Amino acid sequence: MPTLKGKAVVAQSGGPTAVINASAAGVIQDCLANRDVFTGIYGSLNGILGILGEELFDLSSEDPAQIDLLRRSPASALGSCRHKLKDLDADRADYERILEVFKAHDVRYFFYIGGNDSMDTAAKLGQLAGETDYEMIALGVPKTIDNDLACTDHCPGYGSVAKYNATSVMEAGRDTDALYTHDTCTVHEVMGRNAGWIAAATGLARRRGDEAPHIILLPEVPFVVEKFVDDVRRCMTDYKRCFIACGEGVRTPDGQYLADAGGQFAKDSFGHTQLGGAAEAVRAIVESRVGIKARTNQPGTAQRVAMHFASKTDVDEAYLAGQAAVAAALDGVSGKMITLLRDDDSDRYVCTTGLADLQDVANGEKMLPPEFIDANGTGITEAFRQYALPLIQGQAPVEVGDDGLPVYARLDRTPVAKLTPVWPVAR
Amino acid sequence: MPTLKGKAVVAQSGGPTAVINASAAGVIQDCLANRDVFTGIYGSLNGILGILGEELFDLSSEDPAQIDLLRRSPASALGSCRHKLKDLDADRADYERILEVFKAHDVRYFFYIGGNDSMDTAAKLGQLAGETDYEMIALGVPKTIDNDLACTDHCPGYGSVAKYNATSVMEAGRDTDALYTHDTCTVHEVMGRNAGWIAAATGLARRRGDEAPHIILLPEVPFVVEKFVDDVRRCMTDYKRCFIACGEGVRTPDGQYLADAGGQFAKDSFGHTQLGGAAEAVRAIVESRVGIKARTNQPGTAQRVAMHFASKTDVDEAYLAGQAAVAAALDGVSGKMITLLRDDDSDRYVCTTGLADLQDVANGEKMLPPEFIDANGTGITEAFRQYALPLIQGQAPVEVGDDGLPVYARLDRTPVAKLTPVWPVAR
Repeated sequence: MPTLKGKAVVAQSGGPTAVINASAAGVIQDCLANRDVFTGIYGSLNGILGILGEELFDLSSEDPAQIDLLRRSPASALGSCRHKLKDLDADRADYERILEVFKAHDVRYFFYIGGNDSMDTAAKLGQLAGETDYEMIALGVPKTIDNDLACTDHCPGYGSVAKYNATSVMEAGRDTDALYTHDTCTVHEVMGRNAGWIAAATGLARRRGDEAPHIILLPEVPFVVEKFVDDVRRCMTDYKRCFIACGEGVRTPDGQYLADAGGQFAKDSFGHTQLGGAAEAVRAIVESRVGIKARTNQPGTAQRVAMHFASKTDVDEAYLAGQAAVAAALDGVSGKMITLLRDDDSDRYVCTTGLADLQDVANGEKMLPPEFIDANGTGITEAFRQYALPLIQGQAPVEVGDDGLPVYARLDRTPVAKLTPVWPVAR
Repeated sequence: MPTLKGKAVVAQSGGPTAVINASAAGVIQDCLANRDVFTGIYGSLNGILGILGEELFDLSSEDPAQIDLLRRSPASALGSCRHKLKDLDADRADYERILEVFKAHDVRYFFYIGGNDSMDTAAKLGQLAGETDYEMIALGVPKTIDNDLACTDHCPGYGSVAKYNATSVMEAGRDTDALYTHDTCTVHEVMGRNAGWIAAATGLARRRGDEAPHIILLPEVPFVVEKFVDDVRRCMTDYKRCFIACGEGVRTPDGQYLADAGGQFAKDSFGHTQLGGAAEAVRAIVESRVGIKARTNQPGTAQRVAMHFASKTDVDEAYLAGQAAVAAALDGVSGKMITLLRDDDSDRYVCTTGLADLQDVANGEKMLPPEFIDANGTGITEAFRQYALPLIQGQAPVEVGDDGLPVYARLDRTPVAKLTPVWPVAR
């Protein structure tokens, strides 16, 4: 079969990360190196929204130095979105619109960098293309700080958010160590949704028993107030201070998010509703039930784009995943997501890429397995350390400007002329 | 006058910073280099509390490599406190107790690294020593991320928190840029109490008009809801997104902290009380009045100890301030705080040290001056950039262990035998 020729579209979706641009750089640079196959390389503004709205820009006209700088730049330089397409039947008009835009521009390659929703979109798009006999290749490149994608050992983005949060907990933990006579307890909230991968990673900071985090609240372990209060009291006895790392998706045994249930805990003692995230609920419980002062650290979005202390391993693998997608495309592969594979037989950490069905990724979700959680449910095991430590190795280089602050890439985003009727896209 | 011989006590007080240990290293190393004068060098556990409780430890028995590593280690390695002594009359017993401990150990030099409360304590201690004819030298070394100490161009600790928050806002700002179709507004809360120095520093991240932070809420500028809502709406028109940096100490025109007043804003629209800090109040106003989705980033204590991206200039100056205190002590100077002086006549930034009366520092407070605030009250001026940029230059080196995480100093804190009766200290 002769190689399919046509344009390529690359898009980014979901929450930004420190390394999603590195994956984009891998795709873009390797497409540019194969211009005989890829007759054009377009970026889509804000993920699938940019295709629906035909808001494409020409990546081949960007400054190559800026494309390379994407490898050292956080967030989503192409723009991202959280627009989720439903089933082919429910959102058929949207899928057909995407094909209309692709056909108008002779787009034959679609690289979607994102999480499981994005893999679902890419899978269905490929399916519809097949049904309508439009020859095209749809490939996924994994991206999520949550590390919860199925079929892959780990996800680009996770190593960096893990390294950053572990470092931040180590530092803030020393703050609590120093000032425990005043601020006795600190609750550090991390992202990760229903998966405890990021919360667990803060445990890497604890080289000694008295170091932070003393208690990790994982979404995989139901939060029982009495047990938690006992844990905090024991920690106070042992260390006179308590540093808690708390996943945003921690839930009570009846499945209620602590972030939503906070009011019920706070109301008991203070008589008013407690808003804010899980950490604020935990703080209220510590103050009202244990009777010690507590404060919260909630880095929020800053944690997922903390390029200034990102994992070099993560950045390199994100780039590799982008390159692997182009290599797969050149091999005629479609309907797959690039996976990261760990060679378990090797003495040292070796990571290569593989392929998984987009639909398998879309339908899967990978929680922190029991063997990574300690017996008390509030700490990590040696097995987790062995899993996670290789992923945070090395410090990703950062360009720093004359003003002492990082220099990150800026794309010109030169628009591609529209060839189809206007399509209303809500932004 | 022959040089006074005796032991030296060094103590740290108040909120930890990335560089307060660098100041301690400067004091300790230069005391150790002058053992003919300083017959012993003790650390006090948790600031003034450690002296009251006679919990001293011998710094000369520490591993010199760990003492040197203090220059690259955040938080307060000696332990800190927020214990404030009142006037000599009100807390005379405490001051006399301190002198009792000093006399018992022949402590003749007291180096207190802290903010204005610490300078007040050091000043009064020196005063009482004078009254009771106990010959001793009390010196202060400035420390505060808030940068609000009088008599000094800037404070050790500020450059690093400024660099970190500017970087974090730059990164999180790009996150908001990328995902504005979903999370349109981000409110990033910074420390700084009643002074806007840290909030202003986030403005350094804004190299272009469309970059974050679009709006800076400074404690020096009263927060008027209608004006703020107009500012956000204009920002949305111009950029389709809005990134707000918010000082924790922002107040309404009647002087109420936004953090306390949040309830009144949120209650109007949601019917429930809004807790949390200033950022949560701002978020509630944005969502209810402008009608766009907003989220908050609240790095909390993590920002002040973020050694992993600290300013080399700040670290070097903190160390220099510690050394200058020892030099002043050797000159027989007492009752002074080391200050940082900027040579305004030099083409390039030059920083030297000076001396100020402890009592002048104790009674002063330095807010962000009007010439550093733009006409709209929500941004910085070129004059502020010129002031602040030199302070964030250079990246402080960080030692990284085999596990990919920073390695920070640990002191053994070998206790010094107690020589006085037990004194009850509440911790």
